[in-house]
Amino acid sequence: MTSYVRAMYDFSGEPGSSEISINVGEVLAVTRTDVGEGWWEGKNSQGKVGLFPAAYVEVMSAAEAQKHNHQPAVSSPVAVATAATAVTGDSTTRYDQTADEYDDWEDDWDDDNDTYSEIGPSGAAKTNNHAPTATALSHSASNYDNKNLPAAPMDDTISLASTAAPSNTTTLKKSGMFGKSSDSYILGLGNKEKLSDHEIVHIAYVDNFCYWQTNHQRYSVIVASPKKETKFKGMKTFIAYQLTPSFNNISVSRRYKHFDWLHERLVEKFCLIPIPPLPDKQISGRYEEQFVEHRRVQLQEFVDWVCRHPVLSQCEVWHHFLTCNDDKMWKSGKRKAERDTYVGVTYCWAISPPEKTLLPSYVDAQMESCSLFAHTMDIAVRNLLALSNDTTKRYQTQCKKEFQRIGDGLSDLAKALNIDERRAPSKSTALSESVGRVGGIFIGIGQLFGDQPKLDWIPFSDRLHIYRGVLNSFPDILSTHKGAMQKRKECERLTAEQKMSNAQMTDVNRRTDVISYAVMAEMSHFKEERDTHLKQALKSFIEEQIKFYSNVVNRLQEAYRQFD
Amino acid sequence: MTSYVRAMYDFSGEPGSSEISINVGEVLAVTRTDVGEGWWEGKNSQGKVGLFPAAYVEVMSAAEAQKHNHQPAVSSPVAVATAATAVTGDSTTRYDQTADEYDDWEDDWDDDNDTYSEIGPSGAAKTNNHAPTATALSHSASNYDNKNLPAAPMDDTISLASTAAPSNTTTLKKSGMFGKSSDSYILGLGNKEKLSDHEIVHIAYVDNFCYWQTNHQRYSVIVASPKKETKFKGMKTFIAYQLTPSFNNISVSRRYKHFDWLHERLVEKFCLIPIPPLPDKQISGRYEEQFVEHRRVQLQEFVDWVCRHPVLSQCEVWHHFLTCNDDKMWKSGKRKAERDTYVGVTYCWAISPPEKTLLPSYVDAQMESCSLFAHTMDIAVRNLLALSNDTTKRYQTQCKKEFQRIGDGLSDLAKALNIDERRAPSKSTALSESVGRVGGIFIGIGQLFGDQPKLDWIPFSDRLHIYRGVLNSFPDILSTHKGAMQKRKECERLTAEQKMSNAQMTDVNRRTDVISYAVMAEMSHFKEERDTHLKQALKSFIEEQIKFYSNVVNRLQEAYRQFD
Repeated sequence: MTSYVRAMYDFSGEPGSSEISINVGEVLAVTRTDVGEGWWEGKNSQGKVGLFPAAYVEVMSAAEAQKHNHQPAVSSPVAVATAATAVTGDSTTRYDQTADEYDDWEDDWDDDNDTYSEIGPSGAAKTNNHAPTATALSHSASNYDNKNLPAAPMDDTISLASTAAPSNTTTLKKSGMFGKSSDSYILGLGNKEKLSDHEIVHIAYVDNFCYWQTNHQRYSVIVASPKKETKFKGMKTFIAYQLTPSFNNISVSRRYKHFDWLHERLVEKFCLIPIPPLPDKQISGRYEEQFVEHRRVQLQEFVDWVCRHPVLSQCEVWHHFLTCNDDKMWKSGKRKAERDTYVGVTYCWAISPPEKTLLPSYVDAQMESCSLFAHTMDIAVRNLLALSNDTTKRYQTQCKKEFQRIGDGLSDLAKALNIDERRAPSKSTALSESVGRVGGIFIGIGQLFGDQPKLDWIPFSDRLHIYRGVLNSFPDILSTHKGAMQKRKECERLTAEQKMSNAQMTDVNRRTDVISYAVMAEMSHFKEERDTHLKQALKSFIEEQIKFYSNVVNRLQEAYRQFD
Repeated sequence: MTSYVRAMYDFSGEPGSSEISINVGEVLAVTRTDVGEGWWEGKNSQGKVGLFPAAYVEVMSAAEAQKHNHQPAVSSPVAVATAATAVTGDSTTRYDQTADEYDDWEDDWDDDNDTYSEIGPSGAAKTNNHAPTATALSHSASNYDNKNLPAAPMDDTISLASTAAPSNTTTLKKSGMFGKSSDSYILGLGNKEKLSDHEIVHIAYVDNFCYWQTNHQRYSVIVASPKKETKFKGMKTFIAYQLTPSFNNISVSRRYKHFDWLHERLVEKFCLIPIPPLPDKQISGRYEEQFVEHRRVQLQEFVDWVCRHPVLSQCEVWHHFLTCNDDKMWKSGKRKAERDTYVGVTYCWAISPPEKTLLPSYVDAQMESCSLFAHTMDIAVRNLLALSNDTTKRYQTQCKKEFQRIGDGLSDLAKALNIDERRAPSKSTALSESVGRVGGIFIGIGQLFGDQPKLDWIPFSDRLHIYRGVLNSFPDILSTHKGAMQKRKECERLTAEQKMSNAQMTDVNRRTDVISYAVMAEMSHFKEERDTHLKQALKSFIEEQIKFYSNVVNRLQEAYRQFD
C-alpha cells in the first residue's frame, strides 16, 4: 500500500540538490525509503519528487491516508514491510531478502573499505543505514496508534533512522532527530507493553544520589590470543580475537568488524549512556604483531568498560556478541538486534525510576554542572593524550638516543684510554674496562627508555582514549535531556492552555524524570568508574614509572660498582 | 749601547705592512724592543726600518757588534737593560720603570678588556708580551757565551719571547720558536749552574715505568667564598676568591686575572707539562651569583689539578700565588717570575733523569702511542662535552617543562573531577584531591629535572673541560719532543761527519733523553690522574644520577600513596 507522511517541521531543501522543501502539515506520498542516512524520497501535492529527512515527517495512519487520498492505496511506489513480517523475521518477505543480501556483503566490502582492519564471514555494519530504517518504517506501520494528543502525532520509530546513523558525531540535524524520538517517548507513544521483566532496569535514589540498580553477578571477559585466521583456502586472512567470559568460560572468536557492529548497536540503543569507543581504525600495518597485540589491549579496555557497566553488561545484544558460537544463531540474533525497537530515548520505557518526583531546579543544576564537568574533563583528557603522544615519542627516540649517545661517548673514551693503557700496562684494573662497561650500561638504559612507553604512557593513553570517547558522548546526552525538558515545558504550556490534561502532564513529568534519572544514574556510574578505573589507571601509570626509574637506578648502581 | 742582532732564519715581511724581510746572517740595528707580542723593530744595512720576530734573530755580543759596526755602540736607539739590573730588579733602570708602569695598568685595562671578569689592583697579564721579551734580551746580553759549536750559535733566551706569547695555541711560527729553545738546550747552551737543589725535579724509572719523583708532602687548597669587593670608594667592583692552602691555613685573595697571569707563567715555564685550563672568560653576567659560584667550582678544579701535580705543585710562581699576602712582595715576586729563565725546554736543566739511556725505538713507540691516545681521547672528551651541553639544556628546559606539563595536565584533570564531585559529594576521599596532589608532585619532579644538571652534568663537564685543555697541550708537547729528536739526528749526522765530538753527542743524547723522560713522566702522571680523578669524576657523575633517579622514585612513590 502507498505510504503517506505528514511534515511535522519545515525543511528547506538545498537548492540545486535532489532535496525537496516541505512545510508543516504538508502531505507527501513516499516513493522510496531505502535512500539511506535518514533520508526518504517523496512526491508532494504539486507532483514534485525529492529527498527529505525521515525524522521530519510522521507516517499517516491508513485511515488518515485514505481520507487524504480519496483512493485505495494499492499501487504504492514502495512496499513497506508490515510489522508482522518484521517482528517474526520471516525471511521470505522482500525486506528480509534484502537484509540477507546485506549479510552476504563478505569480502567485497572488506576490500572496498580499507579502514577496517579485518575481513570475514559475519556481522552487518553496512546494513545499518538501511535495515533500521526499513525496520522503523515497518514497525511504525503496525504499531502506530493515533492517540488523541494535542501535539502533532509522532512515532518513536521515526527516530530510529537517525540513531542508526554513524555513531557519536553530533550534527544539528541529528540532534534534532534525537529530539523527535525523545518527544514521542515523553508523550507516551510506543510499545512499552512488550518488555519482559529481565529487560527492565531499575534506578535507585538514596541520599540525593541515584544509581543504576543491579542484582546481576559481576563478570569479566578476557580478550586474548589474537590469531591470524584464513578462509577460502588461505585466500583471505584476518585477525580474530578470542573472547572468554568468566560466567561460562566458553571462548568465542570475534573480529574487529564484529566489535564495530556491536558498537553501532550499543550507540543506537543507549542514547543516554556513553558507549566507550573502539580503538581507532587503522589502514596500514594491521597484521603487524605489535599492532595486533596493542589492539587486543585496547579491545580489552573496551570490553572491561562494558562489563563494568550495570546496564550495558546485561543487554541482549552484548550477550549475543559474547556467547554466540553458531553461524545461524549469530545471523538471527544480529537481525533481531538490528530490528530492536527499544533504541534511543525509547529505551527509557525499559527504565524503572525511583518514586520521587524530581525538582526541575535540582535537575537543571545537575545538568549544568555535568555539562561544565564533561567539557572541562574533555579538555584535560585531550591535553593528557597529546602529552602522552609527545612523551612516548620523546622516550622512544630522543631519550633512548641520548642515553645511547652517552653510552657510545663513554665507549669511545674507553677505547682512547685503552690506547694509553696498552702503552704502559699497569697491574691495577684498567680504567678503560670500567668505562667501557659503564658505556654498555648506559646504552642499556637507553633501551629501557625506548621500551618504557609500552609500559606506562601507551596503556595510560589507551585508557584516556576510552575517556575521550565517553566524554565525547556527553554533549549529545545532555542535548537529548535538554530537548526533553523543552518538550516538558511545551506540555506545561499546553496544560495551562487546557490543551493537555493534568493526568497527561503528570505522565509527561514522570517520563522526563526518567530521562533525568537515567542521565544522573549514568553520571553516578561514570563517577564510580573514575573512582575505580581512572584511579587504577593513574596508579598503574605511576607504578610503572616507579618500576622504570627504580630500574634506571639499579642500572646506574651497577655502573657505579664498575669503579669499585 | 746600540744593540745589534743577526738573523738566524729567513723572515718574509708582509708586503704593505710595517714588517721588514730579513735573511739568515743579516745584521740589524735594534731600534725598538717594546713593540710587543714578540716583535722588535730594527734597521737593516740599506737603512730600511721595520718589525721582525725577536725569536728569529740572535743578539750579537759587544765584540761582534763592534766588529760589525766599526764604531762604539753608544747612541743606540734603545737601551737594552743589562743582566745585572734585570736580575737585581733595580727599579731605577729604564726597564724596570717600564715594568712598573705596566704594573699600573689597573682599571683602564679592565675597562678596555671586557673579556676579563674582574678588575683590580695587582697582577700583570698585559705586560707578558713585553716584560719577558725585555728580560730575555737583558739576559742574553749578559749570559750569552759564544761557544764553539758547529751549528749557528743560538741563545736559549731568545725563545722566551715566544714562550711568553699567549698560551697553548699552536701556530707554525711559534712551534718553530719552541724548536729553537729546544735546540739550544739540547746543544747544552744556557745557565744550568744557577739552579738550587730544591729546584731540581727527579724522574724515576722503575719497571719500564717512569714518573715524577717527589718527596714533598701533598697538600690541598680550598677556593672559597667569592666576594664582591670594591675599590676607589665603591667606584670599582670585582670578585675575589679566597684561597686557603692546607699547609699554612692562611687565606689569600685572588681575582680571575691573577689566575690568568699565573696560568700564563705556568704555560711559559712548563712546555712539556700540560697546564690545566682556566674556566672560559665570560663577558656578561660576571657578577651573577650563579656564575660566580660556578666559576669558583671551576677554579677549584684548576687548583686541585695543580696541587696534585708533583712538579707544578712545587714550583715557585705557584707558591708565590698561593701564599703572597703583601702588595710589595707580590710585585717583586711577580717580576721575578716574569724574568724566570728556566722556561720552555730550558726548564729541562732542572730535571734530573734516571741513569738509564733510552732506546730511540722505545721512545718512538711511546710517543706514537701517546699521540694516538691524546687525539682519540680529545675527540671522546669533546663529544662528551657536546653531549653534556645538550643534555644540560634538555634537562633544564624540555624535561622540566614536560614533567610540569604532566603536572599541569593532572591538575586540570583534578579541577575537572572536582566540578563533578561538587555536583554529587560522596564520603570517600575525592579523587580530584589525589590527582591534584599528584599533579603537584609531577611539577616538583620537573623542578628536580631542571636542577639536576648542576649536580651531575655541569660538574662532570667542568672536569671534562680540564681534560680538553690538557689534551689540547699534547700536540705541542709531542711536537717539541719531535723537534728534539730531529735535532738529535742532526747532531748524529754531524758526529758522523766528525763535526761534533762523541762526548758532545753523548751529552746531546742525554739531554734529549731528559726531554723523552719528562714527556713519559708526564704521561704517567696523566694516567694516574685519570685513574683517580677521571674515575672519581665518573663515579660522582653516576652517584649524582643515582641520587637523582632515586629521588624521582621517591616522589613517584609519594604520588602513588595519594591513591591509597
